[in-house]
Amino acid sequence: AIADAVDAALGDGPLRGKHILVTSGPTHEPIDPVRYIANRSSGAQGTAIARALLSLGARVTFVTGPADVPPPVGADVVAVQTADEMLDAVRSAQDVDAGVFAAAVADWRVASASDQKIKKDGKGLPVLEFAENPDILATVCASKARPALVVGFAAETQDVIAHATAKRARKGCDWIVANDVSPATGIMGGTENDVVLITETGAEDWPRMGKDAVAARLAQKIAEVLNG
Amino acid sequence: AIADAVDAALGDGPLRGKHILVTSGPTHEPIDPVRYIANRSSGAQGTAIARALLSLGARVTFVTGPADVPPPVGADVVAVQTADEMLDAVRSAQDVDAGVFAAAVADWRVASASDQKIKKDGKGLPVLEFAENPDILATVCASKARPALVVGFAAETQDVIAHATAKRARKGCDWIVANDVSPATGIMGGTENDVVLITETGAEDWPRMGKDAVAARLAQKIAEVLNG
Repeated sequence: AIADAVDAALGDGPLRGKHILVTSGPTHEPIDPVRYIANRSSGAQGTAIARALLSLGARVTFVTGPADVPPPVGADVVAVQTADEMLDAVRSAQDVDAGVFAAAVADWRVASASDQKIKKDGKGLPVLEFAENPDILATVCASKARPALVVGFAAETQDVIAHATAKRARKGCDWIVANDVSPATGIMGGTENDVVLITETGAEDWPRMGKDAVAARLAQKIAEVLNG
Repeated sequence: AIADAVDAALGDGPLRGKHILVTSGPTHEPIDPVRYIANRSSGAQGTAIARALLSLGARVTFVTGPADVPPPVGADVVAVQTADEMLDAVRSAQDVDAGVFAAAVADWRVASASDQKIKKDGKGLPVLEFAENPDILATVCASKARPALVVGFAAETQDVIAHATAKRARKGCDWIVANDVSPATGIMGGTENDVVLITETGAEDWPRMGKDAVAARLAQKIAEVLNG
């Protein structure tokens, strides 16, 4: 790790001169001034990936929702709350060599978000109207400024490979890092991950390992492709 | 502070021999295995109150949702996620001299919470059916084992005194600590608070001060009543 840091500081390493965008963390979608919809992403895997890319010499722009873990030292950090804000930040930063979209972006926002706290008194149960959030991964993949390598993530709770393979085709990205986030796996919010990498050649099942190890392996693979 | 800690350790202080229940933090109400509804309570004010009570010699049972700040050292901590779980924990711990209900308990839970991650594919927008959560403060106030002193909290964004005075009457509690949590105030998630204490004699407007100072003043007032 020290050698990696020295390499990075010296601008050495296989990703020297490469600029990579990483998104990470959950998004928070407001219901009213005090309530919001969140998800259990801690930001640990996205942060580990950014650190691994930095250690290989890349310049990293790190667009992050409100995560539990601190952002990586040495990255250009852009903090956002909502999916809309994350899309804006990504659009401003997508002129990169690769994009890794590890954030757990909310699929929906509350269309009827209130300026005032919704009161409980006498009005019965609230009715929340939802609106679809922008699909950041698909938007980037379809844009003229699409990075040469786009890596998406899929958090599934069943039929992981089938869902993730379909997602890769639907979004138009190069790879999907898929994992099973069922509560029983302890992955969401935990320190380990158990991923399947979906590429154009099929599904590569990685053994369960620490999120840092997953990050190192993915960063290495990104370096091979960008230098290939 | 050191003198307070020594007093507490020696079992001295005006709240020596008193047992106080404090609830704190937000609750998280699941939508599916990865999504949930949350609120912006950091747990800072409830935690500060528990610390202030401990420093006056009280025994404190601290029932907390997933807060941003660590729980107070020296309290009996019970960690919960949902309003239902918080009610269960409070029921098991309400045989106390006073209860301070500082938690920002969700008014509603998702009645239709899903065992599987709700998929975005092709099914349109989700429909969330809500159910009313138990009213923990009103339940405690109406119970046979009601503590001699019950302090509720009101987080408002408009007409703070009117709403909080009505809430005091409706819930049947002794005091309401009311504050304006409009985003512009910076109170929710911040280090300061600006409260109005609603009692049987009216509204007492406290100057804006640190959450620790609010906690110290409230703990002092609780000690006066319990010893009065």
